[in-house]
Amino acid sequence: MELLQQKIREQGIIKEGNILKVDMFLNHQMDVQLFYEMGKEWARLFKDKEITKILTIEASGIGIACCAALSFDNIPVVFAKKSQGANMDSNVYSVKVDSFTKKKTFDVAVAKKYLLPEDKVLIIDDFLANGCAVRGMMKLIKLAGAELVGVGIAIEKGFQEGGRELREEGIQVESLAIVESMNAATNEIVFR
Amino acid sequence: MELLQQKIREQGIIKEGNILKVDMFLNHQMDVQLFYEMGKEWARLFKDKEITKILTIEASGIGIACCAALSFDNIPVVFAKKSQGANMDSNVYSVKVDSFTKKKTFDVAVAKKYLLPEDKVLIIDDFLANGCAVRGMMKLIKLAGAELVGVGIAIEKGFQEGGRELREEGIQVESLAIVESMNAATNEIVFR
Repeated sequence: MELLQQKIREQGIIKEGNILKVDMFLNHQMDVQLFYEMGKEWARLFKDKEITKILTIEASGIGIACCAALSFDNIPVVFAKKSQGANMDSNVYSVKVDSFTKKKTFDVAVAKKYLLPEDKVLIIDDFLANGCAVRGMMKLIKLAGAELVGVGIAIEKGFQEGGRELREEGIQVESLAIVESMNAATNEIVFR
Repeated sequence: MELLQQKIREQGIIKEGNILKVDMFLNHQMDVQLFYEMGKEWARLFKDKEITKILTIEASGIGIACCAALSFDNIPVVFAKKSQGANMDSNVYSVKVDSFTKKKTFDVAVAKKYLLPEDKVLIIDDFLANGCAVRGMMKLIKLAGAELVGVGIAIEKGFQEGGRELREEGIQVESLAIVESMNAATNEIVFR
């Protein structure tokens, strides 16, 4: 998606260790008009999939998922909540997710009543790198007996394994910008 | 706002201890079309205020603020991030916020570059009860030397002090539903 790539080129900051900082418009300060356009693109890419629900994860996926959902046919967004310890609440599905950036493991949970066996679920998130967050959400969908329809990602780090592995499993992954390589010294970035 | 009050009447669950559960449409599963309508109402109520930025707080304010921002004139949303301990990062403004529901204190922070002295800021959040979250965000705005234009709230608990105190200080607080009283035994709710 040209608009997103342009925004990354203009405002993204590349740091050593393959870190791409986009908190100017994506995950701290948020460009909601951009999110709305991203939603239109996902709605086009997942047309005719009869999606009933969008699932995202706290916190930086929420804004994107909510603005995006406005371009779908009146479906709700549910966000997986981060919790401190193991969740013993019998009313929720809970899984463990490893965070690459934060280098720790946390529990995320969704109330059972908001993820149903008849749901056809689109996962939306801001980043896809090694795929841990998406895998966590996929486990929640599986626990609910719901169907995963696809995955919508803002920025995929194409040089990490997450996206390739998901696609090899036959999952429709639509990343609106796929970073092939980036150079912290020159601030150059190459998109797939 | 009739639409929101109707939704609370239909789907809200009142629990002992003055707890109103609205996670069916507001803060776990999210009705984004409702959020969009709420944004149109806030845009009307804060017309001519020349707002440059919307500030909200992780996590349940984010979806509402982002959908709402689409009805304003191309302004970004910034969310205050919850952090584990005292934040020593010199690039952020950080304050402590007491959580009424979670009965604990946490730190919230905003990057200095996303809250500027020239900003005219509208705070948006899902609930207003004793006002701790709003007070925290007001402190962040003050630390930045920015101007608070007003506060947009989805549901205010009118029987707690937060809203009254803010209005007495001359702050424009626009709560789209103000709960005057509620009864857990009968599930009855009275709006102001």
